[in-house]
Amino acid sequence: MSETWVPGADGTGFGLDNLPYGAVSHDGRPPRPAVRIGDRALILGEVPGLSAQLPAGALDGPTLDPILAAGRPAWRALRARLTELLRAESPERDKAERALVPLAETEARLPIGVPDYVDFYSSIEHASNVGRIFRPDAEPLMPNWRHLPVGYHGRSSSVIVSGTPVRRPHGQLPTSDGAPTYGPTKRLDIELELGFVTGPGRPLGEPIPASAVREHIFGFVLVNDWSARDIQRWEYQPLGPFLGKSFATSISAWVTPLEALEPFRVAPRPQDPEPLPYLRLEEDWALDIELEIELCGAVVSRTNARGLYWTAPQQLAHATVNGANVRPGDLYASGTISGPEPGTYGSLLELTWGGRDALDAGGAARTFLEDGDEVVLRGWCGERERPTITFGEVRGAILPAA
Amino acid sequence: MSETWVPGADGTGFGLDNLPYGAVSHDGRPPRPAVRIGDRALILGEVPGLSAQLPAGALDGPTLDPILAAGRPAWRALRARLTELLRAESPERDKAERALVPLAETEARLPIGVPDYVDFYSSIEHASNVGRIFRPDAEPLMPNWRHLPVGYHGRSSSVIVSGTPVRRPHGQLPTSDGAPTYGPTKRLDIELELGFVTGPGRPLGEPIPASAVREHIFGFVLVNDWSARDIQRWEYQPLGPFLGKSFATSISAWVTPLEALEPFRVAPRPQDPEPLPYLRLEEDWALDIELEIELCGAVVSRTNARGLYWTAPQQLAHATVNGANVRPGDLYASGTISGPEPGTYGSLLELTWGGRDALDAGGAARTFLEDGDEVVLRGWCGERERPTITFGEVRGAILPAA
Repeated sequence: MSETWVPGADGTGFGLDNLPYGAVSHDGRPPRPAVRIGDRALILGEVPGLSAQLPAGALDGPTLDPILAAGRPAWRALRARLTELLRAESPERDKAERALVPLAETEARLPIGVPDYVDFYSSIEHASNVGRIFRPDAEPLMPNWRHLPVGYHGRSSSVIVSGTPVRRPHGQLPTSDGAPTYGPTKRLDIELELGFVTGPGRPLGEPIPASAVREHIFGFVLVNDWSARDIQRWEYQPLGPFLGKSFATSISAWVTPLEALEPFRVAPRPQDPEPLPYLRLEEDWALDIELEIELCGAVVSRTNARGLYWTAPQQLAHATVNGANVRPGDLYASGTISGPEPGTYGSLLELTWGGRDALDAGGAARTFLEDGDEVVLRGWCGERERPTITFGEVRGAILPAA
Repeated sequence: MSETWVPGADGTGFGLDNLPYGAVSHDGRPPRPAVRIGDRALILGEVPGLSAQLPAGALDGPTLDPILAAGRPAWRALRARLTELLRAESPERDKAERALVPLAETEARLPIGVPDYVDFYSSIEHASNVGRIFRPDAEPLMPNWRHLPVGYHGRSSSVIVSGTPVRRPHGQLPTSDGAPTYGPTKRLDIELELGFVTGPGRPLGEPIPASAVREHIFGFVLVNDWSARDIQRWEYQPLGPFLGKSFATSISAWVTPLEALEPFRVAPRPQDPEPLPYLRLEEDWALDIELEIELCGAVVSRTNARGLYWTAPQQLAHATVNGANVRPGDLYASGTISGPEPGTYGSLLELTWGGRDALDAGGAARTFLEDGDEVVLRGWCGERERPTITFGEVRGAILPAA
């Protein structure tokens, strides 16, 4: 673990081993690309000489998309240069110092443009739990589930950055007599997910092989795929989730580069049956990322992303095997990450088994979310008390229905 | 029907009653907004004084999105001004003449940015046919179908403009023994749809009431939602279509303004049960648009958009009732438009009843599409031989799998 001269940054998970990218507004200016180190943001456009290594305008904002479009050689050079500027005893410390501002003086904005948003369903425990809860008399997993990473397109426009409050949505709610009623959702839920953000993209008609993942995935964020379970349950057949999800999807303000996660690649769980050749991997692509859900100030679930059945390279290879094109700043989320036991589930739907068993959230009994509740998703690599990498948290509070 | 001085335009459906908007490249320049009149494109940025009535840069391209963002008062003023310039005996004819170029010297590009793409399922005949073909032993319509316009998000990145060829996609194909195979789709299909394009948009948390449709829908295009039926059938449960659709969705190069379609609003079909209040309409919003599918040079189906069960204002009100935000240039497609008889179906799946009955396409027998086949979707209002409005056709030819 290399050290930095930035005070207090070492040991927080926002030291040199991470260097996540975001887009922040400072001094009332429109948002610009920045890197987080400790509790500060390094405004990249203010670092002398840095823009010369990137395409014109790449550091002007309002999102990271032009940096993502620049591709892996540019990402590596940029990270190496930032590490050089920020390392302890750097002779060029002053070049970075003038571009460093306290996070408290900035406002984090959505770091990516999200031209498309795909959500997968890659935890076998989650998919099995949902099957058991929604279709108790049937096989919990559909016949296709072990053959492909099931996924669907979500709404891009309502992807929001951590900290943005979420208004309880209205919609059609099912009733026992068959005709729906209209009103605010009574079953507002969270989904703990990990998402990846794409790099330079790929033209229509050119699939991305799983082996090319380092050229195409820039980095990772945490994702809270807010869900209205009653709306979703009534609407989802036969074309999938729509309004039960499209009101809000929250992501981290900071994108941790894939390069930073290389030390945390671990062997994935076995897949049975062996997937088709385009989904096979030559390297280990499970990610050892600890995850937790805080609700009303209490940790109500704790799990790890390494348990996902389908990995990011498999998700991207599958999503493009038909030639679908990819653009810089696309978001691909894992689907809810659940472990094998109740305290490791990634949604209230599972933690309360469809609302049957209330959860103790720091003294408050909860089945689904109530107005005013705040949810925080956290993720880290390494030791909890002194993490190597900390993900940007995903925080959101529930506003009452309009 | 007003007349224009542009030679040959009257009576083609591309006269003053239409004035559809597109984005064309001319003289090797990047695409810019244009209006089609007859077989010419009026490059809006070349018309003296026009840009002064619009937000700065609105006519610079590469898409219509800044015009869409400008809102209805701007659209009305622009249309009135264009009508004034192009009408027979206009004293300002010379101002338009210098901006007019033959379509043959232009290249039409995707007219809108498509920040999000939603596809509905609004034809009761289509939904019933698909239910009968895919789930022969169950009720063809799901219990929710008559209560809400079922819809889902499609992929924005692969929305392409008419004329772009479509490569046959690879994917997982179902087999009789349960394990899928990998290969090019054997069931490549079309879907005849009508789509609307949104105007200024709406922030997160603010639903669009059905009564505000004229402020939010700029215009309409034809849509071919290409579908790989075997890929779709294997993948679609439980989260809906994904790779069976995401390889290509073709739209018209020209967007016909809603204002031009006002004379073709007709009474919609009755809805039973009466929908919830947010889906009720105070005006007639079915659209009397004749539609046809040409395959291998032969018309194989003919139908009319007025038969759709759910109308555009209902679709938009439903898609935003949960507060989902809308941006300029979003695309919302109707879903396949099928009439009650076989010769009026909007997909090969239905026209051949799941591939059972081959279709005669100008002497060629077809169940699904073969390599080299060309499909053209056409739409018009008024008389076939002398239409008041002609929609930009949607043309696409099938390239063999890579």
